[in-house]
Amino acid sequence: MFEQLGLIGCGLMGGSFALAARQAGRVRRVVGYSPSANTTRRALERGVVDAVAAGAADAAKGSDLILVAVPVGASARTFAAIRDSLRPDALMMDVGSTKRDVVEAARRALGERIAQFVPCHPMVGREVAGVENADAGLYAGGQVIITPIAETPPERITQAHAVWQALGCHTLQLTPESHDAALAAVSHLPHLIAFAFIQGVAAQPEGHRFLSLAGPGFRDFSRIAASNPDMWRDIFLANSAEIKTQLHRFRAALDHIEQLIENGNAEALVAEIRTASAIRAHWSPAQPVKPTA
Amino acid sequence: MFEQLGLIGCGLMGGSFALAARQAGRVRRVVGYSPSANTTRRALERGVVDAVAAGAADAAKGSDLILVAVPVGASARTFAAIRDSLRPDALMMDVGSTKRDVVEAARRALGERIAQFVPCHPMVGREVAGVENADAGLYAGGQVIITPIAETPPERITQAHAVWQALGCHTLQLTPESHDAALAAVSHLPHLIAFAFIQGVAAQPEGHRFLSLAGPGFRDFSRIAASNPDMWRDIFLANSAEIKTQLHRFRAALDHIEQLIENGNAEALVAEIRTASAIRAHWSPAQPVKPTA
Repeated sequence: MFEQLGLIGCGLMGGSFALAARQAGRVRRVVGYSPSANTTRRALERGVVDAVAAGAADAAKGSDLILVAVPVGASARTFAAIRDSLRPDALMMDVGSTKRDVVEAARRALGERIAQFVPCHPMVGREVAGVENADAGLYAGGQVIITPIAETPPERITQAHAVWQALGCHTLQLTPESHDAALAAVSHLPHLIAFAFIQGVAAQPEGHRFLSLAGPGFRDFSRIAASNPDMWRDIFLANSAEIKTQLHRFRAALDHIEQLIENGNAEALVAEIRTASAIRAHWSPAQPVKPTA
Repeated sequence: MFEQLGLIGCGLMGGSFALAARQAGRVRRVVGYSPSANTTRRALERGVVDAVAAGAADAAKGSDLILVAVPVGASARTFAAIRDSLRPDALMMDVGSTKRDVVEAARRALGERIAQFVPCHPMVGREVAGVENADAGLYAGGQVIITPIAETPPERITQAHAVWQALGCHTLQLTPESHDAALAAVSHLPHLIAFAFIQGVAAQPEGHRFLSLAGPGFRDFSRIAASNPDMWRDIFLANSAEIKTQLHRFRAALDHIEQLIENGNAEALVAEIRTASAIRAHWSPAQPVKPTA
Protein backbone atom coordinates (compact mmCIF):
# COMPACT_ATOMS: atom_id res chain seq x y z
CA MET A 1 0.00 0.00 0.00
CA PHE A 2 1.32 3.42 -0.96
CA GLU A 3 0.44 6.28 1.31
CA GLN A 4 0.11 8.88 -1.42
CA LEU A 5 -0.07 8.76 -5.19
CA GLY A 6 1.19 11.92 -6.83
CA LEU A 7 -0.67 11.99 -10.12
CA ILE A 8 0.81 14.31 -12.72
CA GLY A 9 -1.65 14.47 -15.59
CA CYS A 10 -5.27 13.61 -14.78
CA GLY A 11 -6.49 12.50 -18.20
CA LEU A 12 -7.75 9.11 -19.36
CA MET A 13 -4.54 7.23 -18.50
CA GLY A 14 -3.72 8.99 -15.24
CA GLY A 15 -7.29 9.25 -14.02
CA SER A 16 -7.96 5.57 -14.74
CA PHE A 17 -4.76 4.59 -12.92
CA ALA A 18 -5.82 6.52 -9.81
CA LEU A 19 -9.26 4.94 -9.80
CA ALA A 20 -7.87 1.43 -10.38
CA ALA A 21 -5.07 1.75 -7.79
CA ARG A 22 -7.53 2.94 -5.19
CA GLN A 23 -10.00 0.18 -6.04
CA ALA A 24 -7.18 -2.39 -5.74
CA GLY A 25 -6.34 -1.02 -2.31
CA ARG A 26 -2.88 0.08 -3.44
CA VAL A 27 -3.03 3.79 -2.64
CA ARG A 28 -4.51 5.55 0.37
CA ARG A 29 -4.65 9.08 -1.00
CA VAL A 30 -4.30 10.75 -4.40
CA VAL A 31 -2.93 14.24 -4.98
CA GLY A 32 -3.29 15.32 -8.59
CA TYR A 33 -1.99 18.04 -10.83
CA SER A 34 -3.08 19.11 -14.28
CA PRO A 35 -2.27 22.38 -16.05
CA SER A 36 -6.01 22.64 -16.75
CA ALA A 37 -8.07 23.86 -13.77
CA ASN A 38 -11.11 22.43 -15.49
CA THR A 39 -9.53 18.98 -15.48
CA THR A 40 -8.56 19.05 -11.80
CA ARG A 41 -12.03 20.28 -10.85
CA ARG A 42 -13.62 17.35 -12.65
CA ALA A 43 -11.01 14.97 -11.20
CA LEU A 44 -12.05 16.10 -7.72
CA GLU A 45 -15.75 15.81 -8.55
CA ARG A 46 -15.31 12.30 -9.89
CA GLY A 47 -13.26 11.16 -6.89
CA VAL A 48 -10.19 10.58 -9.06
CA VAL A 49 -8.09 12.76 -6.75
CA ASP A 50 -8.53 13.68 -3.08
CA ALA A 51 -6.66 16.94 -3.39
CA VAL A 52 -5.39 19.21 -6.14
CA ALA A 53 -1.75 20.25 -6.22
CA ALA A 54 -0.68 23.70 -7.39
CA GLY A 55 2.02 22.25 -9.64
CA ALA A 56 3.82 19.04 -10.58
CA ALA A 57 6.35 19.57 -7.77
CA ASP A 58 3.58 19.87 -5.21
CA ALA A 59 1.98 16.65 -6.44
CA ALA A 60 5.33 14.85 -6.08
CA LYS A 61 6.13 16.24 -2.65
CA GLY A 62 5.32 13.73 0.07
CA SER A 63 4.20 11.07 -2.41
CA ASP A 64 5.68 7.58 -2.23
CA LEU A 65 4.25 6.70 -5.67
CA ILE A 66 4.36 9.12 -8.58
CA LEU A 67 2.73 8.55 -11.95
CA VAL A 68 3.69 10.85 -14.79
CA ALA A 69 0.77 10.61 -17.22
CA VAL A 70 1.34 13.46 -19.65
CA PRO A 71 1.80 13.54 -23.44
CA VAL A 72 5.40 12.33 -24.00
CA GLY A 73 6.42 15.76 -25.30
CA ALA A 74 5.75 17.16 -21.82
CA SER A 75 7.96 14.58 -20.06
CA ALA A 76 11.16 16.68 -19.93
CA ARG A 77 9.59 19.70 -18.25
CA THR A 78 7.63 17.46 -15.88
CA PHE A 79 10.77 15.65 -14.70
CA ALA A 80 12.61 18.95 -14.31
CA ALA A 81 9.75 20.37 -12.25
CA ILE A 82 9.57 17.48 -9.77
CA ARG A 83 13.26 16.59 -9.40
CA ASP A 84 13.83 18.49 -6.17
CA SER A 85 10.55 17.43 -4.61
CA LEU A 86 11.06 13.68 -4.91
CA ARG A 87 11.04 11.71 -1.66
CA PRO A 88 14.16 9.49 -1.70
CA ASP A 89 12.03 6.35 -1.30
CA ALA A 90 9.42 7.26 -3.92
CA LEU A 91 8.79 5.07 -6.95
CA MET A 92 8.15 7.06 -10.11
CA MET A 93 6.64 5.57 -13.28
CA ASP A 94 5.26 6.98 -16.51
CA VAL A 95 2.75 5.71 -19.07
CA GLY A 96 4.29 7.08 -22.27
CA SER A 97 3.88 5.30 -25.60
CA THR A 98 7.52 5.97 -26.53
CA LYS A 99 10.41 5.14 -24.24
CA ARG A 100 13.79 6.25 -25.61
CA ASP A 101 12.85 9.93 -25.59
CA VAL A 102 11.28 9.65 -22.13
CA VAL A 103 14.39 7.91 -20.78
CA GLU A 104 16.65 10.58 -22.31
CA ALA A 105 14.51 13.33 -20.81
CA ALA A 106 14.61 11.59 -17.42
CA ARG A 107 18.40 11.18 -17.58
CA ARG A 108 18.88 14.85 -18.35
CA ALA A 109 16.43 16.14 -15.75
CA LEU A 110 16.72 13.71 -12.85
CA GLY A 111 20.47 13.18 -12.45
CA GLU A 112 21.15 10.38 -9.97
CA ARG A 113 17.46 10.27 -9.05
CA ILE A 114 16.95 8.44 -12.34
CA ALA A 115 17.23 5.29 -10.17
CA GLN A 116 13.77 6.03 -8.79
CA PHE A 117 12.22 6.08 -12.24
CA VAL A 118 10.89 2.94 -13.93
CA PRO A 119 9.77 3.68 -17.50
CA CYS A 120 6.49 1.91 -18.32
CA HIS A 121 4.10 1.66 -21.23
CA PRO A 122 0.69 0.23 -20.44
CA MET A 123 -0.73 -0.87 -23.78
CA VAL A 124 -4.27 0.06 -23.05
CA GLY A 125 -6.25 3.03 -24.20
CA ARG A 126 -9.40 4.21 -25.77
CA GLU A 127 -10.22 6.51 -28.63
CA VAL A 128 -11.66 8.99 -26.14
CA ALA A 129 -9.58 11.16 -23.83
CA GLY A 130 -9.96 13.17 -20.66
CA VAL A 131 -10.74 12.63 -17.01
CA GLU A 132 -14.45 12.32 -17.81
CA ASN A 133 -13.63 8.99 -19.49
CA ALA A 134 -11.38 7.74 -16.68
CA ASP A 135 -12.35 4.18 -15.86
CA ALA A 136 -11.22 1.94 -13.00
CA GLY A 137 -11.37 -1.02 -15.43
CA LEU A 138 -9.17 0.44 -18.19
CA TYR A 139 -6.02 -1.44 -17.16
CA ALA A 140 -7.47 -4.82 -16.18
CA GLY A 141 -6.26 -7.53 -18.53
CA GLY A 142 -3.97 -5.12 -20.35
CA GLN A 143 -0.31 -5.60 -21.13
CA VAL A 144 2.33 -3.32 -19.62
CA ILE A 145 5.80 -3.11 -21.12
CA ILE A 146 8.39 -2.13 -18.51
CA THR A 147 11.65 -0.80 -19.95
CA PRO A 148 14.25 -0.57 -17.16
CA ILE A 149 17.62 1.00 -17.90
CA ALA A 150 21.12 0.32 -16.57
CA GLU A 151 20.50 2.65 -13.62
CA THR A 152 17.28 0.93 -12.48
CA PRO A 153 17.83 -1.16 -9.33
CA PRO A 154 16.27 -4.66 -9.41
CA GLU A 155 14.00 -3.93 -6.43
CA ARG A 156 12.48 -0.96 -8.26
CA ILE A 157 11.73 -3.15 -11.26
CA THR A 158 10.07 -5.73 -9.02
CA GLN A 159 8.05 -3.00 -7.34
CA ALA A 160 6.82 -1.65 -10.70
CA HIS A 161 5.76 -5.11 -11.90
CA ALA A 162 3.83 -5.57 -8.64
CA VAL A 163 1.93 -2.29 -9.00
CA TRP A 164 0.72 -3.10 -12.51
CA GLN A 165 -0.08 -6.69 -11.65
CA ALA A 166 -2.19 -5.50 -8.73
CA LEU A 167 -4.24 -3.62 -11.33
CA GLY A 168 -4.81 -6.85 -13.27
CA CYS A 169 -2.15 -6.21 -15.93
CA HIS A 170 0.27 -8.64 -17.54
CA THR A 171 3.79 -7.24 -17.45
CA LEU A 172 6.81 -7.86 -19.62
CA GLN A 173 10.21 -6.26 -20.08
CA LEU A 174 12.04 -4.83 -23.08
CA THR A 175 14.83 -2.34 -23.56
CA PRO A 176 13.60 1.16 -24.47
CA GLU A 177 15.14 0.73 -27.96
CA SER A 178 13.45 -2.59 -28.58
CA HIS A 179 10.17 -1.19 -27.32
CA ASP A 180 10.29 1.77 -29.69
CA ALA A 181 11.18 -0.38 -32.71
CA ALA A 182 8.35 -2.83 -32.03
CA LEU A 183 5.75 -0.19 -31.23
CA ALA A 184 6.60 1.80 -34.36
CA ALA A 185 5.61 -1.28 -36.35
CA VAL A 186 2.48 -2.43 -34.52
CA SER A 187 1.08 0.77 -33.03
CA HIS A 188 2.59 4.01 -34.34
CA LEU A 189 2.42 3.03 -38.01
CA PRO A 190 -1.22 1.85 -37.82
CA HIS A 191 -2.20 5.12 -36.16
CA LEU A 192 -0.39 7.16 -38.81
CA ILE A 193 -2.06 5.11 -41.55
CA ALA A 194 -5.48 5.50 -39.96
CA PHE A 195 -5.15 9.30 -39.71
CA ALA A 196 -3.92 9.52 -43.32
CA PHE A 197 -6.67 7.19 -44.52
CA ILE A 198 -9.42 9.34 -42.99
CA GLN A 199 -7.82 12.51 -44.40
CA GLY A 200 -7.46 10.95 -47.84
CA VAL A 201 -11.10 9.88 -47.99
CA ALA A 202 -12.58 13.01 -46.42
CA ALA A 203 -10.56 15.43 -48.57
CA GLN A 204 -12.31 14.44 -51.80
CA PRO A 205 -15.51 16.11 -53.05
CA GLU A 206 -17.72 13.10 -52.26
CA GLY A 207 -15.71 12.08 -49.20
CA HIS A 208 -18.36 12.61 -46.58
CA ARG A 209 -20.98 10.80 -48.64
CA PHE A 210 -18.56 7.90 -49.07
CA LEU A 211 -17.98 7.80 -45.31
CA SER A 212 -21.71 7.64 -44.69
CA LEU A 213 -21.76 4.37 -46.64
CA ALA A 214 -19.02 2.70 -44.65
CA GLY A 215 -19.68 -0.54 -42.79
CA PRO A 216 -18.28 -2.63 -39.96
CA GLY A 217 -14.87 -3.23 -41.61
CA PHE A 218 -14.29 0.51 -41.83
CA ARG A 219 -15.51 1.00 -38.28
CA ASP A 220 -12.89 -1.30 -36.76
CA PHE A 221 -10.07 -0.38 -39.15
CA SER A 222 -10.42 3.34 -38.51
CA ARG A 223 -11.35 3.31 -34.83
CA ILE A 224 -7.83 4.40 -33.80
CA ALA A 225 -8.08 7.47 -36.08
CA ALA A 226 -10.27 9.03 -33.37
CA SER A 227 -7.36 8.98 -30.91
CA ASN A 228 -6.04 11.95 -28.94
CA PRO A 229 -4.26 14.39 -31.30
CA ASP A 230 -1.79 15.88 -28.76
CA MET A 231 -0.69 12.46 -27.63
CA TRP A 232 -0.12 11.26 -31.19
CA ARG A 233 1.69 14.40 -32.33
CA ASP A 234 4.20 13.78 -29.53
CA ILE A 235 4.57 10.07 -30.32
CA PHE A 236 5.17 10.70 -34.02
CA LEU A 237 7.78 13.36 -33.29
CA ALA A 238 9.46 11.33 -30.53
CA ASN A 239 9.78 8.11 -32.52
CA SER A 240 10.16 9.54 -36.01
CA ALA A 241 13.20 7.49 -37.07
CA GLU A 242 11.61 4.12 -36.30
CA ILE A 243 8.33 5.23 -37.82
CA LYS A 244 10.13 6.26 -41.01
CA THR A 245 11.67 2.78 -41.24
CA GLN A 246 8.25 1.16 -40.86
CA LEU A 247 6.62 3.55 -43.34
CA HIS A 248 9.25 2.57 -45.87
CA ARG A 249 8.45 -1.14 -45.43
CA PHE A 250 4.72 -0.47 -45.58
CA ARG A 251 5.01 1.55 -48.79
CA ALA A 252 7.01 -1.24 -50.41
CA ALA A 253 4.32 -3.79 -49.52
CA LEU A 254 1.59 -1.43 -50.76
CA ASP A 255 3.41 -0.78 -54.04
CA HIS A 256 3.88 -4.50 -54.56
CA ILE A 257 0.19 -5.33 -54.13
CA GLU A 258 -0.81 -2.40 -56.34
CA GLN A 259 1.55 -3.63 -59.04
CA LEU A 260 0.00 -7.11 -58.93
CA ILE A 261 -3.47 -5.58 -59.33
CA GLU A 262 -2.25 -3.33 -62.17
CA ASN A 263 -0.77 -6.33 -63.97
CA GLY A 264 -3.89 -8.42 -63.37
CA ASN A 265 -1.65 -11.06 -61.81
CA ALA A 266 -4.41 -13.00 -60.05
CA GLU A 267 -2.20 -15.89 -58.90
CA ALA A 268 0.47 -13.78 -57.25
CA LEU A 269 -2.15 -11.42 -55.84
CA VAL A 270 -4.12 -14.15 -54.10
CA ALA A 271 -0.87 -15.67 -52.78
CA GLU A 272 0.05 -12.32 -51.26
CA ILE A 273 -3.36 -11.87 -49.66
CA ARG A 274 -3.35 -15.45 -48.44
CA THR A 275 -0.06 -14.91 -46.59
CA ALA A 276 -1.35 -11.76 -44.90
CA SER A 277 -4.69 -13.35 -44.08
CA ALA A 278 -3.06 -16.42 -42.52
CA ILE A 279 -0.68 -14.31 -40.41
CA ARG A 280 -3.53 -12.19 -39.10
CA ALA A 281 -5.87 -15.14 -38.55
CA HIS A 282 -3.24 -16.87 -36.40
CA TRP A 283 -2.23 -13.76 -34.51
CA SER A 284 -2.73 -13.57 -30.80
CA PRO A 285 -1.21 -11.17 -28.29
CA ALA A 286 1.88 -12.12 -26.31
CA GLN A 287 1.66 -14.44 -23.39
CA PRO A 288 2.10 -12.70 -20.06
CA VAL A 289 5.72 -12.75 -18.91
CA LYS A 290 6.67 -13.08 -15.26
CA PRO A 291 8.66 -10.25 -13.73
CA THR A 292 12.41 -10.68 -13.82
CA ALA A 293 14.39 -8.57 -11.42
CA MET B 1 -42.85 -16.82 -49.18
CA PHE B 2 -40.69 -18.28 -51.93
CA GLU B 3 -41.18 -21.96 -52.72
CA GLN B 4 -37.56 -22.70 -53.50
CA LEU B 5 -34.29 -20.84 -52.99
CA GLY B 6 -31.64 -21.81 -55.50
CA LEU B 7 -28.41 -21.12 -53.66
CA ILE B 8 -25.35 -20.89 -55.87
CA GLY B 9 -22.34 -20.74 -53.60
CA CYS B 10 -22.79 -22.14 -50.09
CA GLY B 11 -20.09 -20.19 -48.22
CA LEU B 12 -20.41 -17.71 -45.40
CA MET B 13 -22.61 -15.26 -47.34
CA GLY B 14 -24.79 -17.77 -49.17
CA GLY B 15 -25.10 -20.20 -46.27
CA SER B 16 -26.03 -17.43 -43.85
CA PHE B 17 -28.63 -16.11 -46.28
CA ALA B 18 -30.26 -19.55 -46.55
CA LEU B 19 -30.39 -19.96 -42.77
CA ALA B 20 -31.73 -16.43 -42.25
CA ALA B 21 -34.34 -16.66 -45.03
CA ARG B 22 -35.61 -19.94 -43.67
CA GLN B 23 -35.71 -18.59 -40.12
CA ALA B 24 -37.65 -15.54 -41.35
CA GLY B 25 -40.17 -17.85 -43.02
CA ARG B 26 -39.29 -16.51 -46.46
CA VAL B 27 -38.26 -19.73 -48.21
CA ARG B 28 -39.80 -23.18 -47.99
CA ARG B 29 -36.97 -25.23 -49.49
CA VAL B 30 -33.31 -24.65 -50.35
CA VAL B 31 -31.45 -26.34 -53.19
CA GLY B 32 -27.75 -25.56 -53.14
CA TYR B 33 -24.78 -25.87 -55.40
CA SER B 34 -21.08 -25.49 -54.73
CA PRO B 35 -18.18 -26.68 -56.88
CA SER B 36 -16.78 -28.25 -53.69
CA ALA B 37 -18.44 -31.54 -52.72
CA ASN B 38 -17.05 -31.04 -49.25
CA THR B 39 -18.93 -27.75 -48.94
CA THR B 40 -22.28 -29.15 -50.10
CA ARG B 41 -21.92 -32.13 -47.77
CA ARG B 42 -21.42 -29.80 -44.81
CA ALA B 43 -24.23 -27.53 -46.03
CA LEU B 44 -26.56 -30.55 -45.95
CA GLU B 45 -25.31 -31.64 -42.54
CA ARG B 46 -25.82 -28.16 -41.09
CA GLY B 47 -29.33 -27.83 -42.56
CA VAL B 48 -28.26 -24.93 -44.76
CA VAL B 49 -29.64 -26.73 -47.84
CA ASP B 50 -32.34 -29.41 -48.18
CA ALA B 51 -30.91 -30.82 -51.37
CA VAL B 52 -27.71 -30.58 -53.37
CA ALA B 53 -27.83 -29.65 -57.06
CA ALA B 54 -25.40 -31.15 -59.56
CA GLY B 55 -24.62 -27.75 -61.03
CA ALA B 56 -25.59 -24.07 -60.98
CA ALA B 57 -28.24 -24.67 -63.65
CA ASP B 58 -29.84 -27.41 -61.56
CA ALA B 59 -29.95 -25.15 -58.52
CA ALA B 60 -31.70 -22.45 -60.57
CA LYS B 61 -34.19 -24.80 -62.23
CA GLY B 62 -37.56 -24.65 -60.50
CA SER B 63 -36.42 -21.96 -58.04
CA ASP B 64 -38.44 -18.76 -57.65
CA LEU B 65 -35.60 -17.09 -55.71
CA ILE B 66 -31.97 -17.42 -56.76
CA LEU B 67 -29.03 -16.10 -54.80
CA VAL B 68 -25.67 -15.98 -56.54
CA ALA B 69 -23.14 -15.96 -53.70
CA VAL B 70 -19.82 -16.62 -55.42
CA PRO B 71 -16.56 -14.61 -55.53
CA VAL B 72 -17.28 -11.80 -58.04
CA GLY B 73 -14.76 -13.25 -60.50
CA ALA B 74 -17.02 -16.30 -60.87
CA SER B 75 -20.14 -14.22 -61.67
CA ALA B 76 -19.84 -14.38 -65.47
CA ARG B 77 -19.67 -18.17 -65.72
CA THR B 78 -22.39 -18.57 -63.11
CA PHE B 79 -24.81 -16.34 -65.04
CA ALA B 80 -23.96 -18.14 -68.29
CA ALA B 81 -24.58 -21.51 -66.64
CA ILE B 82 -28.05 -20.68 -65.28
CA ARG B 83 -29.42 -18.49 -68.06
CA ASP B 84 -31.48 -21.22 -69.74
CA SER B 85 -32.73 -22.69 -66.48
CA LEU B 86 -34.28 -19.51 -65.07
CA ARG B 87 -38.01 -19.66 -64.35
CA PRO B 88 -39.53 -16.55 -65.99
CA ASP B 89 -40.98 -15.40 -62.65
CA ALA B 90 -37.79 -16.00 -60.61
CA LEU B 91 -36.06 -13.17 -58.77
CA MET B 92 -32.29 -13.40 -58.94
CA MET B 93 -29.93 -11.45 -56.66
CA ASP B 94 -26.23 -11.53 -55.89
CA VAL B 95 -24.13 -10.50 -52.89
CA GLY B 96 -21.00 -9.24 -54.67
CA SER B 97 -18.84 -6.49 -53.19
CA THR B 98 -18.38 -4.86 -56.60
CA LYS B 99 -21.27 -4.02 -58.87
CA ARG B 100 -20.17 -2.66 -62.26
CA ASP B 101 -18.34 -5.82 -63.22
CA VAL B 102 -21.20 -8.03 -62.00
CA VAL B 103 -23.73 -5.96 -63.96
CA GLU B 104 -21.57 -6.17 -67.10
CA ALA B 105 -21.23 -9.92 -66.68
CA ALA B 106 -24.99 -10.25 -66.19
CA ARG B 107 -25.72 -8.12 -69.27
CA ARG B 108 -23.47 -10.24 -71.44
CA ALA B 109 -24.68 -13.59 -70.12
CA LEU B 110 -28.37 -13.08 -69.43
CA GLY B 111 -29.65 -11.17 -72.45
CA GLU B 112 -33.21 -9.98 -71.87
CA ARG B 113 -33.39 -12.05 -68.68
CA ILE B 114 -31.29 -9.31 -67.10
CA ALA B 115 -34.67 -7.90 -65.99
CA GLN B 116 -34.92 -10.71 -63.43
CA PHE B 117 -31.60 -9.77 -61.83
CA VAL B 118 -31.35 -7.23 -59.03
CA PRO B 119 -27.69 -6.54 -58.13
CA CYS B 120 -27.20 -6.33 -54.37
CA HIS B 121 -24.34 -5.81 -51.93
CA PRO B 122 -25.08 -6.71 -48.32
CA MET B 123 -22.42 -4.91 -46.31
CA VAL B 124 -21.98 -7.60 -43.74
CA GLY B 125 -19.28 -10.15 -43.38
CA ARG B 126 -16.78 -11.68 -41.08
CA GLU B 127 -13.08 -12.39 -41.29
CA VAL B 128 -13.87 -16.10 -41.42
CA ALA B 129 -15.27 -17.88 -44.45
CA GLY B 130 -17.02 -21.10 -45.35
CA VAL B 131 -20.32 -22.83 -44.69
CA GLU B 132 -19.08 -23.91 -41.24
CA ASN B 133 -19.31 -20.25 -40.21
CA ALA B 134 -22.72 -19.66 -41.78
CA ASP B 135 -24.90 -17.85 -39.27
CA ALA B 136 -28.62 -17.06 -39.38
CA GLY B 137 -27.84 -13.76 -37.63
CA LEU B 138 -25.17 -12.49 -40.03
CA TYR B 139 -27.49 -10.16 -41.93
CA ALA B 140 -29.64 -8.79 -39.10
CA GLY B 141 -29.05 -5.06 -38.66
CA GLY B 142 -26.76 -4.93 -41.70
CA GLN B 143 -26.96 -2.49 -44.57
CA VAL B 144 -27.72 -3.71 -48.10
CA ILE B 145 -26.94 -1.54 -51.10
CA ILE B 146 -29.22 -2.36 -54.02
CA THR B 147 -27.95 -1.15 -57.41
CA PRO B 148 -30.72 -1.48 -59.98
CA ILE B 149 -29.99 -0.77 -63.64
CA ALA B 150 -32.08 0.69 -66.46
CA GLU B 151 -33.49 -2.75 -67.27
CA THR B 152 -34.67 -3.52 -63.70
CA PRO B 153 -38.47 -3.23 -63.41
CA PRO B 154 -39.73 -1.31 -60.36
CA GLU B 155 -41.58 -4.34 -58.97
CA ARG B 156 -38.36 -6.37 -58.95
CA ILE B 157 -36.61 -3.62 -57.00
CA THR B 158 -39.43 -3.55 -54.46
CA GLN B 159 -39.29 -7.32 -54.17
CA ALA B 160 -35.54 -7.25 -53.51
CA HIS B 161 -35.89 -4.57 -50.80
CA ALA B 162 -38.58 -6.70 -49.15
CA VAL B 163 -36.41 -9.84 -49.06
CA TRP B 164 -33.51 -8.08 -47.35
CA GLN B 165 -35.75 -6.20 -44.98
CA ALA B 166 -37.37 -9.48 -43.94
CA LEU B 167 -33.88 -10.56 -42.87
CA GLY B 168 -33.58 -7.46 -40.67
CA CYS B 169 -31.45 -5.42 -43.08
CA HIS B 170 -31.59 -1.72 -43.88
CA THR B 171 -31.67 -1.19 -47.62
CA LEU B 172 -30.61 1.71 -49.79
CA GLN B 173 -30.08 2.31 -53.49
CA LEU B 174 -27.16 3.54 -55.55
CA THR B 175 -26.09 3.22 -59.16
CA PRO B 176 -23.46 0.49 -59.70
CA GLU B 177 -20.91 3.21 -60.58
CA SER B 178 -21.60 5.22 -57.45
CA HIS B 179 -21.44 2.05 -55.36
CA ASP B 180 -18.05 1.06 -56.72
CA ALA B 181 -16.56 4.54 -56.23
CA ALA B 182 -17.77 4.74 -52.62
CA LEU B 183 -16.79 1.20 -51.70
CA ALA B 184 -13.30 1.62 -53.18
CA ALA B 185 -12.79 4.44 -50.66
CA VAL B 186 -14.35 2.98 -47.52
CA SER B 187 -13.93 -0.77 -47.97
CA HIS B 188 -11.58 -1.86 -50.76
CA LEU B 189 -8.80 0.58 -49.86
CA PRO B 190 -8.84 -0.30 -46.13
CA HIS B 191 -8.61 -4.00 -46.99
CA LEU B 192 -5.71 -3.39 -49.36
CA ILE B 193 -3.96 -1.29 -46.71
CA ALA B 194 -4.55 -3.92 -44.04
CA PHE B 195 -3.08 -6.72 -46.21
CA ALA B 196 -0.06 -4.56 -47.09
CA PHE B 197 0.42 -3.50 -43.48
CA ILE B 198 0.57 -7.10 -42.24
CA GLN B 199 2.95 -8.04 -45.07
CA GLY B 200 5.17 -5.05 -44.37
CA VAL B 201 5.48 -5.85 -40.68
CA ALA B 202 5.81 -9.62 -41.02
CA ALA B 203 8.42 -9.46 -43.80
CA GLN B 204 11.11 -7.94 -41.54
CA PRO B 205 13.53 -10.04 -39.48
CA GLU B 206 11.86 -9.20 -36.16
CA GLY B 207 8.36 -9.01 -37.65
CA HIS B 208 6.80 -11.89 -35.80
CA ARG B 209 8.23 -10.76 -32.48
CA PHE B 210 6.84 -7.26 -33.14
CA LEU B 211 3.43 -8.75 -33.88
CA SER B 212 3.49 -10.66 -30.61
CA LEU B 213 3.70 -7.29 -28.82
CA ALA B 214 0.70 -5.76 -30.55
CA GLY B 215 -2.27 -4.56 -28.55
CA PRO B 216 -5.96 -3.74 -28.97
CA GLY B 217 -5.41 -0.93 -31.51
CA PHE B 218 -3.60 -3.34 -33.82
CA ARG B 219 -6.25 -5.99 -33.25
CA ASP B 220 -9.10 -3.82 -34.52
CA PHE B 221 -7.11 -2.04 -37.24
CA SER B 222 -5.91 -5.29 -38.81
CA ARG B 223 -8.96 -7.49 -38.26
CA ILE B 224 -9.98 -7.18 -41.93
CA ALA B 225 -6.56 -8.47 -43.03
CA ALA B 226 -7.80 -11.95 -42.09
CA SER B 227 -10.50 -11.77 -44.78
CA ASN B 228 -11.09 -14.34 -47.52
CA PRO B 229 -8.23 -14.20 -50.09
CA ASP B 230 -10.20 -15.40 -53.15
CA MET B 231 -12.96 -12.91 -52.53
CA TRP B 232 -10.51 -10.01 -52.18
CA ARG B 233 -8.40 -10.97 -55.19
CA ASP B 234 -11.57 -10.72 -57.26
CA ILE B 235 -12.67 -7.41 -55.74
CA PHE B 236 -9.26 -5.79 -56.27
CA LEU B 237 -9.15 -6.93 -59.90
CA ALA B 238 -12.78 -6.00 -60.59
CA ASN B 239 -12.59 -2.48 -59.15
CA SER B 240 -8.96 -1.68 -59.91
CA ALA B 241 -9.52 1.75 -61.48
CA GLU B 242 -11.45 3.16 -58.51
CA ILE B 243 -9.02 1.57 -56.07
CA LYS B 244 -6.11 3.18 -57.91
CA THR B 245 -7.77 6.58 -57.54
CA GLN B 246 -8.22 6.03 -53.81
CA LEU B 247 -4.68 4.72 -53.34
CA HIS B 248 -3.39 7.88 -54.98
CA ARG B 249 -5.33 10.05 -52.52
CA PHE B 250 -4.22 7.93 -49.58
CA ARG B 251 -0.56 8.12 -50.57
CA ALA B 252 -0.79 11.90 -50.84
CA ALA B 253 -2.23 12.13 -47.32
CA LEU B 254 0.41 9.73 -45.99
CA ASP B 255 3.24 11.69 -47.65
CA HIS B 256 1.90 14.91 -46.22
CA ILE B 257 1.82 13.63 -42.63
CA GLU B 258 5.26 12.06 -43.02
CA GLN B 259 6.62 15.38 -44.27
CA LEU B 260 5.20 17.20 -41.24
CA ILE B 261 6.89 14.67 -38.93
CA GLU B 262 10.15 14.93 -40.87
CA ASN B 263 10.08 18.72 -40.55
CA GLY B 264 9.17 18.54 -36.88
CA ASN B 265 6.21 20.78 -37.67
CA ALA B 266 4.28 20.10 -34.46
CA GLU B 267 1.55 22.70 -35.04
CA ALA B 268 0.61 21.56 -38.53
CA LEU B 269 0.93 17.92 -37.50
CA VAL B 270 -1.49 18.20 -34.60
CA ALA B 271 -3.91 20.17 -36.79
CA GLU B 272 -3.86 17.36 -39.34
CA ILE B 273 -4.44 14.68 -36.71
CA ARG B 274 -7.14 16.77 -35.06
CA THR B 275 -9.09 16.97 -38.32
CA ALA B 276 -8.89 13.21 -38.87
CA SER B 277 -9.73 12.47 -35.25
CA ALA B 278 -12.79 14.73 -35.29
CA ILE B 279 -14.09 13.24 -38.54
CA ARG B 280 -13.75 9.71 -37.21
CA ALA B 281 -15.16 10.56 -33.77
CA HIS B 282 -18.30 12.00 -35.38
CA TRP B 283 -18.71 9.23 -37.91
CA SER B 284 -21.78 7.08 -37.85
CA PRO B 285 -23.13 4.75 -40.52
CA ALA B 286 -25.82 5.91 -42.91
CA GLN B 287 -29.41 6.13 -41.84
CA PRO B 288 -31.57 3.44 -43.36
CA VAL B 289 -33.23 4.62 -46.58
CA LYS B 290 -36.75 3.55 -47.55
CA PRO B 291 -37.07 1.58 -50.76
CA THR B 292 -37.85 3.63 -53.83
CA ALA B 293 -39.30 1.76 -56.77
